Amino acid sequence: MENPVLVEVTRGDLVESFHRGAFALVEADGRVVASAGDIERPVFPRSAIKVFQGLQLIESGAADRFELSQEELSLACASHSGEPEHVRLAAGMLAKAGLGETRLECGCHWPFDLPVALDLARSGEAPGPLHNNCSGKHAGFLCTAVHLSEEPAGYVGAAHPVQMRAREAIEDLTGERLGADVCGTDGCSIPTYAAPLRGFAKGFAKLVSGQGVEASRSAAGKRLIEACMAEPFAMSGTKRACAALMDAAPGRVFAKTGAEGVFCGAIPELGLGFALKIDDGTTRASEALVAAVVARAFADADAGLAETYREIGFKTLRNWEKTEVGAIRPVLDA
Amino acid sequence: MENPVLVEVTRGDLVESFHRGAFALVEADGRVVASAGDIERPVFPRSAIKVFQGLQLIESGAADRFELSQEELSLACASHSGEPEHVRLAAGMLAKAGLGETRLECGCHWPFDLPVALDLARSGEAPGPLHNNCSGKHAGFLCTAVHLSEEPAGYVGAAHPVQMRAREAIEDLTGERLGADVCGTDGCSIPTYAAPLRGFAKGFAKLVSGQGVEASRSAAGKRLIEACMAEPFAMSGTKRACAALMDAAPGRVFAKTGAEGVFCGAIPELGLGFALKIDDGTTRASEALVAAVVARAFADADAGLAETYREIGFKTLRNWEKTEVGAIRPVLDA
Repeated sequence: MENPVLVEVTRGDLVESFHRGAFALVEADGRVVASAGDIERPVFPRSAIKVFQGLQLIESGAADRFELSQEELSLACASHSGEPEHVRLAAGMLAKAGLGETRLECGCHWPFDLPVALDLARSGEAPGPLHNNCSGKHAGFLCTAVHLSEEPAGYVGAAHPVQMRAREAIEDLTGERLGADVCGTDGCSIPTYAAPLRGFAKGFAKLVSGQGVEASRSAAGKRLIEACMAEPFAMSGTKRACAALMDAAPGRVFAKTGAEGVFCGAIPELGLGFALKIDDGTTRASEALVAAVVARAFADADAGLAETYREIGFKTLRNWEKTEVGAIRPVLDA
Repeated sequence: MENPVLVEVTRGDLVESFHRGAFALVEADGRVVASAGDIERPVFPRSAIKVFQGLQLIESGAADRFELSQEELSLACASHSGEPEHVRLAAGMLAKAGLGETRLECGCHWPFDLPVALDLARSGEAPGPLHNNCSGKHAGFLCTAVHLSEEPAGYVGAAHPVQMRAREAIEDLTGERLGADVCGTDGCSIPTYAAPLRGFAKGFAKLVSGQGVEASRSAAGKRLIEACMAEPFAMSGTKRACAALMDAAPGRVFAKTGAEGVFCGAIPELGLGFALKIDDGTTRASEALVAAVVARAFADADAGLAETYREIGFKTLRNWEKTEVGAIRPVLDA
C-alpha cells in the first residue's frame, strides 16, 4: 500500500517535491476519527513519545521528591534547542538528584537550530551533554533512578529498570507488545520501539481522556502534558514548531516532534490523540502535516481555531534575497 | 505513476524511512541505458546543471580573456561550501572582470556545512555574497556580461542576456522548449527551468560524447567538466559528496548536486549522462542514489570501480555516542 501525498513543496507554478505519509486522529478506545495512509505499519516514534517515557518521573514520586517545576517537567519531555535556558534547567534537574552532567549518557551534538549553534561557537564553547536535545529526558531518567535507589550508570540500556518502565508504559498505552524485533537504538542511545501510529495516537487519547488507563497513569500524563503546554519553550526552543503549535491555543493543544518525520500529540478537550509519520523522514513535511491534523481535529468544534492551524501549516518559501519562490502546503483535503 | 523506492534508511532491523525517486542513465541520442521511475515528468534541475549555465563563459571567450584557471572554472560550476578558499577564488574572478562583491545578486546565507559555518562564526564574521554557495556561478555570469559589454546589473533576471544564453543552452542540450510555464526562481534568484530527467541526462551525454551538439559547445562543456573533475574541492568543499564521487575515479566521473534531491553528471569514457531526483527532495537520498547510478554505469565496463561506488553509496548511521544504529542504502537492484 502506497501512502498518499500529504505535503507538497511548490516552486513557481509547479510542485517541485512532495511527501507521502500517514496520520491517525484517534479516540481513547482506538476509534479512528480521521486518518490517511497505513496507520498499522510499525514506525519508530523516536522523541514524539517522551511523555510516555517520562511517566515514571511522576508515577515513582521522583517529581514530587525533587520538587520539579513545570519548566523542568516540560524539559523532561523535550527535544530542546540547547539554548542557555535549557542547559540551565537540565543542570538544575541533575543537581536536585545530586548528580553532575557527566552522568548523562546521551552524547553531545551541536544544537540543531543554526542560530543557537552559531551563538555557542561565538562564545568559544563546544556543546556538552547538557546541550543534547534529549538532556532533559535523560535528567528525568536519572532523577527517577536516584529516587528509586537504582544504579544510575547504564540507564540507557534496554534492560535497565528505567528503560523497562518506559517500555511497560508504551506497551500499556499503545496496546502493543514491544520486543527486540521492533527495537532500535535512538540518537541519544536509549531503545526506541516501533509500533503502529494508531497505537501511539490511542495512547495519547487515553492519557488526556482518562479512559482505558489507570487513573494514576492518566493523572501523571496530564501533569506532564499540562507542563509542556504551560512551558512550550522548555519543551522545544526559539521559533520551533512545537512551541508555535502550542502557543497558538494555550492549554488546548499538545504536540511533540520526533526525528524522521514523526509527530504525536493530543487535544485534551476533545479527548483525542494523534500520531503521524512522513515516509521519507522530513521535518518540514511533518511540521506542515501536524498543523493540518490539528486543524482537522478542531474542524467541527472550533472553526476559527481550525483556520488558525491551517494557516500555521502553510509556509511561504523565500530565497536568500527574500523573494517568494514557492510554498510548503499540506494537501490533506486534495 | 508512483516512483519506486530507491533509497532506504534503516534502524535496527527495520526500515525507518524511505525515499522514492527516478533516475535516467542515457546516451547522447537519448537512448536509455538504465532508468527507474518517471523520467519524463518535468523536474527543476536547480544547481545540478551549472555546467550548462556556465557554457557561455567559454563560448563567449570570457574565460580566455580573463585567463580563468581550472579552479575558477570549477568554481563557476560549483555549489561550494563557502570555505575561505572558495571565497578567495570567487573574489579573484570578480576582480579579473573589474568588479567587486557588491555586484553579486545571489544574496547571503550561512555556509550549509556546519563546521564551516561554525568557523565563520568563531572568526566574528558574518556571511557575505561571496560565501553564497553560488557565488562562483554568479562571478562567471558577471565575467561573461563584462566581456560582452552588457550591463551587469540585473543579470539574474530571466530577460537579461546572461540568462537568455543559459536558457538557450539548456534547450539545445535537453531538446526541450523552456517557457515561463516551467520557470521557477532559484535560491540564488536566477531562473530555473523544469524539464524531464531524460533530457538533462541526454544533455550531459551530448557534451561529453560530442554527438548531437555543435563541436564548439561540446568543447566548452568538456573544458568545464574536466576543470570540475580536476578541482573537485572548488566545485564543492570539504567532505562533500560531489568531491568524494569525483575523487574516487579522477577524471572518469563528473557528478554535481542540486537542491531538492537532484544530481546530474556524466561518465565521459562511456559517453553517458545521468540525472536523478528524489521525490521528497532529500539530499541524503540523492547522495546515496547517485553513487548507485554511477556503479550501474560501470557495471559492465569496470566491475571493480562499480564496487567502489556501491560502497560509497552505503552509509552506516551512528548516534551521538558513535553507536551504529542503522544505515542509508540504495535499493536499485531490490
